[in-house]
Amino acid sequence: MSIASYIRTIPDYPHPGILFRDITTLFLNPHGLRQAIDALAAHYAGAPVDKIAAIEARGFLVGAPLAYLLNVGFIPLRKKGKLPADTIEEEYQLEYGKSLIEMHKDAITPGERILLVDDLLATGGTAEAAMRLIARCGGLVHGAAFLVDLPELGGAAALRKAGHDVFTVCEFEGK
Amino acid sequence: MSIASYIRTIPDYPHPGILFRDITTLFLNPHGLRQAIDALAAHYAGAPVDKIAAIEARGFLVGAPLAYLLNVGFIPLRKKGKLPADTIEEEYQLEYGKSLIEMHKDAITPGERILLVDDLLATGGTAEAAMRLIARCGGLVHGAAFLVDLPELGGAAALRKAGHDVFTVCEFEGK
Repeated sequence: MSIASYIRTIPDYPHPGILFRDITTLFLNPHGLRQAIDALAAHYAGAPVDKIAAIEARGFLVGAPLAYLLNVGFIPLRKKGKLPADTIEEEYQLEYGKSLIEMHKDAITPGERILLVDDLLATGGTAEAAMRLIARCGGLVHGAAFLVDLPELGGAAALRKAGHDVFTVCEFEGK
Repeated sequence: MSIASYIRTIPDYPHPGILFRDITTLFLNPHGLRQAIDALAAHYAGAPVDKIAAIEARGFLVGAPLAYLLNVGFIPLRKKGKLPADTIEEEYQLEYGKSLIEMHKDAITPGERILLVDDLLATGGTAEAAMRLIARCGGLVHGAAFLVDLPELGGAAALRKAGHDVFTVCEFEGK
């Protein structure tokens, strides 16, 4: 089975007209989980990556196994108020309003190469905020990896236009 | 280095008098991350486990690599309103007030053996709510695994008294 075929589509969630791509059914299946993580690990095998930074919460499902397999450290990027030590924060745009993403100030040693990981790439706004956090700590963004790309929302194009390497495992049409 | 020595202690977080055990420094170090996940994978190698259920969000960091290594499926247990398909929910007690944990109704096929995973075991209230969700879907709780145990808070003793197998990778004194 293809990786995309393990992903369930839920129509009209969270809003009417949205096709929500639900990766929980991919992770529920051991073959799906393994294929998806192995595809990422194969792509980044031998890459000069020091740490993986992944975005709460579904990004943790992708980033933690990948960090284990690549034998690199893992940085959690979390919603405001969830990290216990000193943090820096960046704002990003939601459909309605704004939100904040935080990282521990001491998560990155200047010069380290960081791979950003999340489950899904839509407009890329959260990923861009995450990259600003990495850069503010002196980290070098090696690239950004996502299980799912929604190309119609333009995130991959925007990140590539900004000079970032983007790798996605599968893609879906629609929004 | 011992696994515990990678874990940072933050005094007076989130409240005065609390010693917060911060596992982000364990995951930040590739040796720490690997040792911790390998300790869990070694303990459960060959165990009759069909799926791992892990509690949002730090539990995902532990449960997802472990599911990959044990080659089993992964079930996310999330805070209310985060899962897109039909869910069941259970209430658990917080220090002040109550909260809800949810699971997809179709995450478990009756008779499947489920290993519950979280980062830290305190009073065990969240774990008990998670086990009720598993049982309501016909799942059999194989046991519960945690990176960190705080034995003074009595969670491990309570879960064992209720007949559950509990495995913890390291423990800390204090609350």
